[in-house]
Amino acid sequence: MRGVVMHAPGDVRVEDVAEPKIIKPTDAIIRLSATCICGSDLWPYRGADEVSEPLQMGHEYAGIVEEVGDDVQLIKPGQFVIGSFFASDNTCEICRAGYQTSCVHREVLGTSGAAQAQRMRVPLADGTLVATPGVPDDDLVPSFLAASDVLGTGWFGAVAAEAGPGKIVAVVGDGAVGLLAVLAAKELGAERIIAMSRHADRQALAREFGATDIVEERGEAGVAKIKELTGGLGAHSVVEAVGTQESMLQAIGATRPGGHVGFVGVLHDVAITGGDIFMTHVHLHGGPAPVRRFLPELIDLIWNRKIDPGRVFDLELPLDRAADGYQAMDQRRAIKVLLRP
Amino acid sequence: MRGVVMHAPGDVRVEDVAEPKIIKPTDAIIRLSATCICGSDLWPYRGADEVSEPLQMGHEYAGIVEEVGDDVQLIKPGQFVIGSFFASDNTCEICRAGYQTSCVHREVLGTSGAAQAQRMRVPLADGTLVATPGVPDDDLVPSFLAASDVLGTGWFGAVAAEAGPGKIVAVVGDGAVGLLAVLAAKELGAERIIAMSRHADRQALAREFGATDIVEERGEAGVAKIKELTGGLGAHSVVEAVGTQESMLQAIGATRPGGHVGFVGVLHDVAITGGDIFMTHVHLHGGPAPVRRFLPELIDLIWNRKIDPGRVFDLELPLDRAADGYQAMDQRRAIKVLLRP
Repeated sequence: MRGVVMHAPGDVRVEDVAEPKIIKPTDAIIRLSATCICGSDLWPYRGADEVSEPLQMGHEYAGIVEEVGDDVQLIKPGQFVIGSFFASDNTCEICRAGYQTSCVHREVLGTSGAAQAQRMRVPLADGTLVATPGVPDDDLVPSFLAASDVLGTGWFGAVAAEAGPGKIVAVVGDGAVGLLAVLAAKELGAERIIAMSRHADRQALAREFGATDIVEERGEAGVAKIKELTGGLGAHSVVEAVGTQESMLQAIGATRPGGHVGFVGVLHDVAITGGDIFMTHVHLHGGPAPVRRFLPELIDLIWNRKIDPGRVFDLELPLDRAADGYQAMDQRRAIKVLLRP
Repeated sequence: MRGVVMHAPGDVRVEDVAEPKIIKPTDAIIRLSATCICGSDLWPYRGADEVSEPLQMGHEYAGIVEEVGDDVQLIKPGQFVIGSFFASDNTCEICRAGYQTSCVHREVLGTSGAAQAQRMRVPLADGTLVATPGVPDDDLVPSFLAASDVLGTGWFGAVAAEAGPGKIVAVVGDGAVGLLAVLAAKELGAERIIAMSRHADRQALAREFGATDIVEERGEAGVAKIKELTGGLGAHSVVEAVGTQESMLQAIGATRPGGHVGFVGVLHDVAITGGDIFMTHVHLHGGPAPVRRFLPELIDLIWNRKIDPGRVFDLELPLDRAADGYQAMDQRRAIKVLLRP
């Protein structure tokens, strides 16, 4: 079958790779209806993460179950399923507390099974995968694919920031995750949603998803602007969806005392000092989003066409043109690229 | 009147200082029934904080109101009152959210009015001070004094760590704040409370306050021990009551994914990396405790003799012997020193 392999920073190829097989009796094999390129795939692509050997890529997936291992009981061949970038048993104490990405038996997808391919292996299928009520119409596939990572991650960011009724929410980052954090804040009932973006197309999508205000300034100027918009106090809830030192400090600075920062950008070279978090009185919570916690709710919203998170895919390519997709995202010509295997 | 002045690290003297006066119509003057030395007073004493000019010391206080400014309406002369180390209006949006130490009009005591003295000025008296139902019996005074800072701070640490029914709570630090965080966790209904201490007298007091387990190990060994006691997962709630890099990492490491770290040790030279907080999935919250939020509840518990936080004072001296008190705390011969003006 065909699959995406990164050989070195900037060097992405679509090649013949080995067919995935059931390795453990808890595995499933799915045929991908769609997959996509993640903002975090750009870290190795840009050389910020090491590529020491050729790497099969991809951890966002939605598709049809083809085969299941002998111990899989809930998931059946023929079902359309969505899973998260970490496989989880969904039964351990940590999973039951809603932190499936810290499951005691977790396995990271990409390593255990790469999604930018025609087929993939998903470990712990019963815990990891959630089936839709039926095979969805094709126009819903991008939204279900978004639920696999970017929607679930933006949603977790908004939940971690305690977005909700009566709250002023600010979102740092206008990538797919940031934009979907805006959508999540809206669905969670936030009173006012400030999107921080300086790109007209992303601002437009943010407004479509529910943003009430746009702030173009960054860093200290961005913090000052948020304070100005919030009576000098700062936002109640701030979602950090970038992962750099500047964006993290911007998020903390834009939060009022007692407010909440939800951070979901993979933190690279970030260091927070005691001074940043002691006198500011913010709450900090984040990490790899436990998407599995939210999948049943998100699937319901998408199946019933109440939200349209697939709007973040502004470029669709056949899997064989994955290299063009990486380039488009790297150059910010595309917010997010969907690949059709 | 007599007051404590720090001239340089290690050089504390009791001298004749100016009588406090009403400066603003919202001020009150109180005659101290008792005051004490704070763990944070040891930072300048040990040279970790600069002492650029002679500094009047003290920010923990309980006493009788002698005089109030023209705009003070709730607080009356003759009342026995307790306040926090930050004066606050208790009416702004931040105060109403429970973060009085970040009040938009806050003033730090010590600077605005020093408590290690016979009398002190308290700004924003109506917002800052809480009166007891009557003048208390003398044996209750140490407990009310504890409410002014160490009890309120330990309590906030336990609340920030979300200690409560069904929770396993660990406390890093066996100073007065850590010990009172144990008491707070007990009062908040925690199922199991692990005190981290290697001093027999402090361990005994921790057990008296409600600790069910003692861990003597520190750093990575301490984290390993907490994991061992919690089925490999870590505690649900960890209170950090020291403020060093090692203790902060110990607190984060001892917390299970999805758990809560409440930090109330004044952070000195602490830097937390993205790696420390991203993959660990902990919640972080802390800062200068908004003691004012808890004062009505704490006063009620003390007045009705349901808790006895004054037990942390294991040395009582007349104000004139403050220098001996600083030395005893610096050398860890005393947990906390009460001074009688």
